[in-house]
Amino acid sequence: MQTEMATPEVRTGQRPPVIDCDLHAEVPTVEALFPYLPPYWVEHITHTRFKGPIDTYYPPQSPVAARPGSLPPQGPAGSSLELLRAQVLDPLNVEVGILVCTYAIDSLHNPDAAVALARAVNDWLAEEWLAKEPRLRASIVVPCQIPQLAAQEIDRVAQHPGFVQVLLPARSYFPYGNRIYHPLWEAIARHDLVAAIHFGGAPGTPPTPSGWPSYYFEEYAGMAQVFASQLTSIVCEGVFDLFPTVKVVLLESGVTWLPPHLWRFDKEWRNLRRLVPWLKQPPSAYVRQHVRLTVQPLDAPADPQALLAVLAQLGAEELLLYASDYPHEHGVDPETVLFPALPEALAQKIRTENARALYRRL
Amino acid sequence: MQTEMATPEVRTGQRPPVIDCDLHAEVPTVEALFPYLPPYWVEHITHTRFKGPIDTYYPPQSPVAARPGSLPPQGPAGSSLELLRAQVLDPLNVEVGILVCTYAIDSLHNPDAAVALARAVNDWLAEEWLAKEPRLRASIVVPCQIPQLAAQEIDRVAQHPGFVQVLLPARSYFPYGNRIYHPLWEAIARHDLVAAIHFGGAPGTPPTPSGWPSYYFEEYAGMAQVFASQLTSIVCEGVFDLFPTVKVVLLESGVTWLPPHLWRFDKEWRNLRRLVPWLKQPPSAYVRQHVRLTVQPLDAPADPQALLAVLAQLGAEELLLYASDYPHEHGVDPETVLFPALPEALAQKIRTENARALYRRL
Repeated sequence: MQTEMATPEVRTGQRPPVIDCDLHAEVPTVEALFPYLPPYWVEHITHTRFKGPIDTYYPPQSPVAARPGSLPPQGPAGSSLELLRAQVLDPLNVEVGILVCTYAIDSLHNPDAAVALARAVNDWLAEEWLAKEPRLRASIVVPCQIPQLAAQEIDRVAQHPGFVQVLLPARSYFPYGNRIYHPLWEAIARHDLVAAIHFGGAPGTPPTPSGWPSYYFEEYAGMAQVFASQLTSIVCEGVFDLFPTVKVVLLESGVTWLPPHLWRFDKEWRNLRRLVPWLKQPPSAYVRQHVRLTVQPLDAPADPQALLAVLAQLGAEELLLYASDYPHEHGVDPETVLFPALPEALAQKIRTENARALYRRL
Repeated sequence: MQTEMATPEVRTGQRPPVIDCDLHAEVPTVEALFPYLPPYWVEHITHTRFKGPIDTYYPPQSPVAARPGSLPPQGPAGSSLELLRAQVLDPLNVEVGILVCTYAIDSLHNPDAAVALARAVNDWLAEEWLAKEPRLRASIVVPCQIPQLAAQEIDRVAQHPGFVQVLLPARSYFPYGNRIYHPLWEAIARHDLVAAIHFGGAPGTPPTPSGWPSYYFEEYAGMAQVFASQLTSIVCEGVFDLFPTVKVVLLESGVTWLPPHLWRFDKEWRNLRRLVPWLKQPPSAYVRQHVRLTVQPLDAPADPQALLAVLAQLGAEELLLYASDYPHEHGVDPETVLFPALPEALAQKIRTENARALYRRL
């Protein structure tokens, strides 16, 4: 399956068009950002030990870190537009692909560095990717740890038609429903953008509710719990009541954890809703209206029938979005593993229609 | 349903016997512990502002905090043996009931206070509950924040035949697989006890992986994620490889989150198992052999068929244990809501057989 995906000639023209909601654009080196940084930061990075954020979400030695052949001659996997075209856009028949750059701005304690590097990444995305490839869109990178500054960066670049969403790392110092983030939500709503919460993040706090795990395996398996905590907070604090046009897309969250989370969430809402009287409907109703998830990686059971049952439990055909997560390798091609088991109308929604309905600027 | 449960005469003799794995014994006031505290602490509590731990897991105003009629003339719900007999042991035909005292020893920063109060609670449980009611067993309360001291307390009381397990709050400063806890696991294994991880905990750190939530509703809904994080850690760090006889029971964790968590856990183990080479089988296999869960509260879907599908996805009939969670009220009586939908042999396992197989000292 993996080699099939990597063989363009087998696939070209055979695959139905898709909107790929999770394509990675990696900053190859901090020097690639120099044309987009003010002289102060170029000088600072050149002459001090500070070389930009160093957090990487995927350990390079992990089998999921990069698919075979995705390493360009220079720079990390995911840093080459040519390879992106050759390995994804052309062979997978990508109509529109949305770039995600997980440069760890959120790990920076220096707010001026965070702002400067976020701006540089966005200008680099616009210049080096969006201007060169009409099939691409991108996510705005923001210093989410300081929501007012994140809002300013959104205001600065939102008029560019190529930016369709704001990227928020799943892990954060405060949960995203917290009122400290309202300026950020306001800016997202003001510009008709989507909030894209992506696997990972480097807030400096533990990635589990019970402290620091010892192994990356624990962090990876546990990321579904991070997404659940963010969803809980966003719904409970009334983000969707205050900003009814806002949509949230969960990138690389997995899918199967959601139905049981909503069962529990709805059940306890019936017990405890006096604490959140602004919620006008059960949490699951907010999620079905406002939240979308990508199908890659798919944390599926071994039994395909159980997976179909989970998809039915999602309770709406609008929730899932196609994503390749290139260059990361998860060993699952939705076109061969997932879609043949689904009604064609649902497969078609996941391939393109749900994304088209979600993104107003696609 | 709630009033039926509270009417002994309707139920007596009609219900099949059960082993109730989650009955709460509440310390009515800190003064109730004075006969079991050394003079230093009696004097300290009497003459200073320190009155023992004050964390309560359930807000008193919450509808789940206590069922109707469970409030004794003096003290909080769950503090009266007479009411426990009248509302649970007799009417629900409880063969054996296991007491859980969630006195928040884990919230105390003073290690001497934590040790003294844990000892006092255990001696109070032995004297005021176990000695007076042969149907009862109890959980050892420990200062889990200092594992060596917790192990000493286990060693001190484990010879008492009424103590069948060690109580660990779900929330903790470090995940329970961390090697800092090995003395605690060693003591649990040494005395053939069970590790009972219970809803709640007061380690002082946030109850979600993305920081402090604003509302107790979020904390309650999110507790399933805390349990998942502990399970991940315990399996990954090889606790079950090092201590192959140890069993873990999750109390008030909910159930439906487990199958999707195991799908993800197994899937990522295939990718990342080089990080945890001591694991000899997929994580789900460890869980099925070593972990049990109580059926109260049941975070069930609205559709009963979906619940049956989830129970099938657990993949073993040995995993679930009966519990009333008295005096907390969840509005679900397994005998009327759950068991009629199950094969009688499975219902019988949940009522008594699984608990009997789990606890060597019942």
